[in-house]
Amino acid sequence: MAFDFAPLVPAGSPAPAVRWSPPGKYNFTFGNNDPEGLDVAELMAAAQGALSREGRRLSDYRLHMGPQGYRPLREFLVKKLRRDAQIECTADDILLTSGSLQGLDLVNGALLAPGDTVICERDCYEGTLNRYARRGVNVVGIALDRGGMRMDELETALADLKKTGVRPKFIYTIPTVQNPTATIMDEARRKTLLALAEDYGVPIFEDDCYADLTWSGERPPALYAMSKTQNVIHIGSFSKTIAPALRVGFIVAPWSILSRILPLKTDAGSGGLEQMMLAEYCEAHFAEHVPQLRQRFQAKLDTLVAALNEQFGTAAEFDYPPGGIFLWVKLPDSVDSMKLRDKALAAGVVINPGPEWSLDKQGSRCRMRLCFASPTHDEIREGIAVLAEVCRKEFGVPTRSANVERRVGA
Amino acid sequence: MAFDFAPLVPAGSPAPAVRWSPPGKYNFTFGNNDPEGLDVAELMAAAQGALSREGRRLSDYRLHMGPQGYRPLREFLVKKLRRDAQIECTADDILLTSGSLQGLDLVNGALLAPGDTVICERDCYEGTLNRYARRGVNVVGIALDRGGMRMDELETALADLKKTGVRPKFIYTIPTVQNPTATIMDEARRKTLLALAEDYGVPIFEDDCYADLTWSGERPPALYAMSKTQNVIHIGSFSKTIAPALRVGFIVAPWSILSRILPLKTDAGSGGLEQMMLAEYCEAHFAEHVPQLRQRFQAKLDTLVAALNEQFGTAAEFDYPPGGIFLWVKLPDSVDSMKLRDKALAAGVVINPGPEWSLDKQGSRCRMRLCFASPTHDEIREGIAVLAEVCRKEFGVPTRSANVERRVGA
Repeated sequence: MAFDFAPLVPAGSPAPAVRWSPPGKYNFTFGNNDPEGLDVAELMAAAQGALSREGRRLSDYRLHMGPQGYRPLREFLVKKLRRDAQIECTADDILLTSGSLQGLDLVNGALLAPGDTVICERDCYEGTLNRYARRGVNVVGIALDRGGMRMDELETALADLKKTGVRPKFIYTIPTVQNPTATIMDEARRKTLLALAEDYGVPIFEDDCYADLTWSGERPPALYAMSKTQNVIHIGSFSKTIAPALRVGFIVAPWSILSRILPLKTDAGSGGLEQMMLAEYCEAHFAEHVPQLRQRFQAKLDTLVAALNEQFGTAAEFDYPPGGIFLWVKLPDSVDSMKLRDKALAAGVVINPGPEWSLDKQGSRCRMRLCFASPTHDEIREGIAVLAEVCRKEFGVPTRSANVERRVGA
Repeated sequence: MAFDFAPLVPAGSPAPAVRWSPPGKYNFTFGNNDPEGLDVAELMAAAQGALSREGRRLSDYRLHMGPQGYRPLREFLVKKLRRDAQIECTADDILLTSGSLQGLDLVNGALLAPGDTVICERDCYEGTLNRYARRGVNVVGIALDRGGMRMDELETALADLKKTGVRPKFIYTIPTVQNPTATIMDEARRKTLLALAEDYGVPIFEDDCYADLTWSGERPPALYAMSKTQNVIHIGSFSKTIAPALRVGFIVAPWSILSRILPLKTDAGSGGLEQMMLAEYCEAHFAEHVPQLRQRFQAKLDTLVAALNEQFGTAAEFDYPPGGIFLWVKLPDSVDSMKLRDKALAAGVVINPGPEWSLDKQGSRCRMRLCFASPTHDEIREGIAVLAEVCRKEFGVPTRSANVERRVGA
């Protein structure tokens, strides 16, 4: 008889995983990248260059460069962050991580204990919200408008918490192409945010993983760059600009907190080859690659927007995002996006339902998040047609049936 | 004025890291691999093959293969584990991890809560002991003899714990080339261990990361293979056989516990390129590469043994290990290896002091662990000469001064 592990699993553990099966044909989730946007030839050349020159470094857990990761990649980041985000830092301020997801876990691990309080945008990255739930942390969600986190609401929340004697551990924000709303916080509001953070003695945790992907190529300075008191922890990633399966992200932080984060990175370093290849590739190609990728993404967004307009008409409301890889869509109030998700899945369409990406479970009930970087233009068009059909059948909206006509002709 | 993060760090957090500096010239720690033993050309070819054929998979966090990792590498492991460890499993039983260190963290995370009890060998991998300490777990250490963990002591410990109502969460063991003693548990003792584990309802956590490195190429079947009740969790690594900076390890486990481990792997997958390259490389070269590596390691061991004999004479006692990358040395009782470590470090020699690798702080006081895979033969000879000189100056042993004479002549 098979041994029963169940009684040994601690109370409060996450639910067991179910066996993986390939996602539906039309996958609008998970934030994957565009396979056709990958410079495979240049990545191969970079891998060859790095391995032929420095391959023997791989025999050392830390590439003979210590626990913060491959130094040339950190040096590239120093230049890149200065140019793009106006961040002044050195390679010693940077820790390379296994994607920015490990960055989230490390920063949370360094600062959060059960019962602590954090502040974040009310609509927020699902992985961030799940992490807080698992750690038993109280989350105060701040409403957003088209300029990102609302400062009047933040000030009220900070004041209310202070009155009750609660000092939040940090304000988590995705200020540049917020996930899922794609808002960008302008420089003036960033100043206000920094001032409030300083007034209340609360540091800022800035997640900048989409910041390279504005259509204009413009972005405000990072909060990390604007802070005068080193009260910001900044994380970023190469997943969105190069390839997520390389699993390379980074933390930029003052040593006073980076020194508390490092002991929590118990994996003896992140993948060395991937760091070496990325350093070689990015030095030569990053600056030209990213604008090309933005164009690809915006073209897919335009296909998505056209498909939504065609299939959903006025039933799908959204702001045209200034960048990123996802669209935050409002459907009519009668639509329950959790139910829509299940029904669409059965029809091969995978979407993120609003309530999984928001602290406002009621307000996000009729919302969905659609990722557009990975599916092809055809998959976007077909998937949205199928989704509209499912939605109409289930909820009576959209009332038009362009999808049916189109599918007959296809 | 800089923001002060210190008051926000939870009580009980690890001590802050100190700035990294390059290790001493003679580094006998950290378990790094032999840079000259790396097949750089073949690894390059494998990277090219994998990238040219399947590079676009990198645009998907999970390589379109789900959360358990690149399937061809898991398929290779199925064959390898059957051939070498007599394990019968499928790719669905394997989770690829960021080195076996992430394996340790994931298995611990799935089973351990503060106040729990685990059993392990009394002399044990430092990283394992540190992990238990950080989790607030009670550890019962079982003495070893030349055949590994002693079964009489294990039985006594299990019975004693049962009497007090404590069911240990698991018995952690490195049965094949134990770290640091390099003992190998024979098949008969493995049977006894499995019988005791079954009798007491305690699963086994088998860490097999050195099992490929026996000089003879022979090894007993894995505990995982011998178990009749699926009560074993098995972890392994490519760090010792290929390259540690690739950060690829694996967990083999029944689904009843693997399904509880998977939700704790919150990094959206380990490095995809490294898994792809390894699959391609291992399929073609693993079987021929590992015997060559063993020869390299044994030659270095022989240099280390000769140097110890020459420099320390009878003051250094040890059993010639049947495999691995480390030697567990006993010095005279007058030597405090913690102090020796500090003094040697100042002279450029880095060693692991016994008490950091043992639960028996007093018995291991005069012991040290010397890793021999990474330093060159010359570094081994010179480093041991310097170490002997430091030890003699500090503790009066070894009494001979071959080192001085040799150094004069050098």
